[in-house]
Amino acid sequence: MSNNRQLRLGTILHGASGNMSAWRHPAAIADASINFEFVKETALKAEAGKLDFLFVADGLYINEKSIPHFLNRFEPLTVLSALASVTTHLGLVGTLSTSYSEPFTVARQFASLDHLSKGRAGWNVVTSPLEGSAKNFSREIHPEHALRYRIADEYLDVVKGLWDSWEEDAFIRDKESGQFFDANKLHTLNHHGDFFKVAGPLNISRTPQGRPIVFQAGASDDGKKLAARHADAIFTHHETLEEAQHFYRDVKGQLANHGRSPEDLHIFQGVSVIVGKDAADVENQYQTTAALVSINDALNYLGRYFEHHDFSQYPLDEAFPDIGDLGQNSFRSTTDEIKRNARERNLTLRQVALEAASPRPRFSGTAQQVADGLQQWFESHAADGFIIQGGTPDTFPRFVDEVVPVLQARGLFRTEYPGTTLRESLGLASPVNQYL
Amino acid sequence: MSNNRQLRLGTILHGASGNMSAWRHPAAIADASINFEFVKETALKAEAGKLDFLFVADGLYINEKSIPHFLNRFEPLTVLSALASVTTHLGLVGTLSTSYSEPFTVARQFASLDHLSKGRAGWNVVTSPLEGSAKNFSREIHPEHALRYRIADEYLDVVKGLWDSWEEDAFIRDKESGQFFDANKLHTLNHHGDFFKVAGPLNISRTPQGRPIVFQAGASDDGKKLAARHADAIFTHHETLEEAQHFYRDVKGQLANHGRSPEDLHIFQGVSVIVGKDAADVENQYQTTAALVSINDALNYLGRYFEHHDFSQYPLDEAFPDIGDLGQNSFRSTTDEIKRNARERNLTLRQVALEAASPRPRFSGTAQQVADGLQQWFESHAADGFIIQGGTPDTFPRFVDEVVPVLQARGLFRTEYPGTTLRESLGLASPVNQYL
Repeated sequence: MSNNRQLRLGTILHGASGNMSAWRHPAAIADASINFEFVKETALKAEAGKLDFLFVADGLYINEKSIPHFLNRFEPLTVLSALASVTTHLGLVGTLSTSYSEPFTVARQFASLDHLSKGRAGWNVVTSPLEGSAKNFSREIHPEHALRYRIADEYLDVVKGLWDSWEEDAFIRDKESGQFFDANKLHTLNHHGDFFKVAGPLNISRTPQGRPIVFQAGASDDGKKLAARHADAIFTHHETLEEAQHFYRDVKGQLANHGRSPEDLHIFQGVSVIVGKDAADVENQYQTTAALVSINDALNYLGRYFEHHDFSQYPLDEAFPDIGDLGQNSFRSTTDEIKRNARERNLTLRQVALEAASPRPRFSGTAQQVADGLQQWFESHAADGFIIQGGTPDTFPRFVDEVVPVLQARGLFRTEYPGTTLRESLGLASPVNQYL
Repeated sequence: MSNNRQLRLGTILHGASGNMSAWRHPAAIADASINFEFVKETALKAEAGKLDFLFVADGLYINEKSIPHFLNRFEPLTVLSALASVTTHLGLVGTLSTSYSEPFTVARQFASLDHLSKGRAGWNVVTSPLEGSAKNFSREIHPEHALRYRIADEYLDVVKGLWDSWEEDAFIRDKESGQFFDANKLHTLNHHGDFFKVAGPLNISRTPQGRPIVFQAGASDDGKKLAARHADAIFTHHETLEEAQHFYRDVKGQLANHGRSPEDLHIFQGVSVIVGKDAADVENQYQTTAALVSINDALNYLGRYFEHHDFSQYPLDEAFPDIGDLGQNSFRSTTDEIKRNARERNLTLRQVALEAASPRPRFSGTAQQVADGLQQWFESHAADGFIIQGGTPDTFPRFVDEVVPVLQARGLFRTEYPGTTLRESLGLASPVNQYL
């Protein structure tokens, strides 16, 4: 990789920002997850900081134990489209599941977002971890993990095929002759696979980015394989530098299997951040936010990763209970990590739940110290970029105002957008139409 | 009905406006169907005229014979969401099919649009007329007409049930106590029907309008039944005042079967309009636009209503061919009308095709004359309102600038919006949550 490697930055909308109970924070907008003014302000702040993108996560099942900002939130494609007309450079990335949607519709909606935003759409491909999702989509069972990834792999072939329906210059629109398009530049997919039969063509032209940017967020082996074949970017999360480096090498190493280069896929580490004037201030900010989480809320939070398992049935101050394989078909990599961590550090259920619900920020300290952490991970090839999650409701604006300038001064991060598309921001090559 | 009956007005995005070849018009923006600046300008013009709503139609299948602005257009939910953040009072209504979508997703996306727009979302429920749609959605066959309407009926029950998941005041967000919501005000649908099994609850709160406004656009008997049970508004089209009055009486008469009043459902006639300084100017505008349509384009246009039937195989200047029942499973009411009209007026294929592809405007003349026509239809109970389609690319701005003031001066149309929601504009009552 060249020395001109440029750090990339996104941010994630996560309720009021901070932990699951951050809405209780004095500085929090309690209804942030359904408050468009807050969303717009966050997007404009991100754009002022020249960030690559804003990321909107999603889920397809809730129950009364779900964390507050999952209960009531904007649907990603609609809120990103609303942002498209009030922003100019910021990438707009949203999660959408390949397990409970139609590729024709999803290809259209992301293509439409790419047109509306003039080339700023990104799709975070997930396979839906939550078992309960099936119950909202007239399905008897939630497909098991490996099957979900086989479906996703074919799904992406279909969507990419549909995105190539029209060559870039297919629409001529010659008023004199009356020729609207060149029929030689229209391609009908006629996909017949194991899971999908989709004829096409798509009823929207090739998009400003050639196609929207594809993110992938599963960290299991199947997820990494899917990313290595299809994705332009990965959104992942690791606790330690070493784990992140291992993941980075692993995924980058798989790209060659698909004729791709390490530069063709960016690895983003999702990191929580707190910026303070000194260590005491940071600790105070963390403790203030952590104290908002009740133990019951924390048990619910933990339970969601394990198919909404009810952890309140176990003693709080004894060792983390043996729950067998629960969670293997939903958040596989996360649940493996939680169980491993509990075992290795000999943690009680209370400790595991509170740590899960209110994790310490990955990078905290003064703006210089936060920048140091990001720089270290970036330069030691643990990440190509970061998706910043504020550890408290007022962190993200401080990150933009205080940390971004440090990264810029160090020559690690842009001071101006290189163009107007997300693809240009990420420095990714234009995709070649498969019919050419 | 009271004497305070107020005329309502919407407009429809229809490519460059005018007939299928209007993109060739000197005044046309040739890429209008994928040009957000044009869309935004149209929306802002509609809002300046205090119109009730902008309407975005849709379709799920194209082929190389489809009309130009269907080949390449924005997807409705995304473009309406993009408009939500740059308009303030205009209703935002989009078509979405119940035959090729998931009720959980559709309920969410329209609810999200309603939140983003602060109460201006409308859903035009269609069952997808085009046979080819099945091929884009991994289906072996396009469901037959009656089955599509049975599916739609249950689909609407599911979506309305999901929209009632949360009572209006369910979210408490008490920072002190940590109570985010009142569990007594959360309702889980647990729908198990013939076509759908959807548990819920929806992961978005009750919307600003209680629920989005439901339009229905099918004019068959099944369509009317569906509307009488479920819809707040109908989007229809009739050639003559008498036909429109008959339809109006028929549908309004069916409302009582469902415990509803005539005022609970608005009937909108879709009308094409040309405004000119005199009859010669209007005729010149019409002929200029009509001349843009080639006979081949007209045959393709006609064919689309009949399952993309190839009409070029018949002699152009002989009687309209006998094509049997073709079209009965797609645009049933339209194809019936085309065949009846051809038979009664003894038209040739050429005449049928050109009339279909470039119909004369329903109302044309000076602004006063256009207003006269609208007033007559309104006052004689042929319509509660109109969805205006410009007969030429420059008609709609003229309609707002010249016809709307006449309607306002006559006391038929508002001079200010009565509130900020589409429901308020339409004067419709707030829906009652089914769990109360």
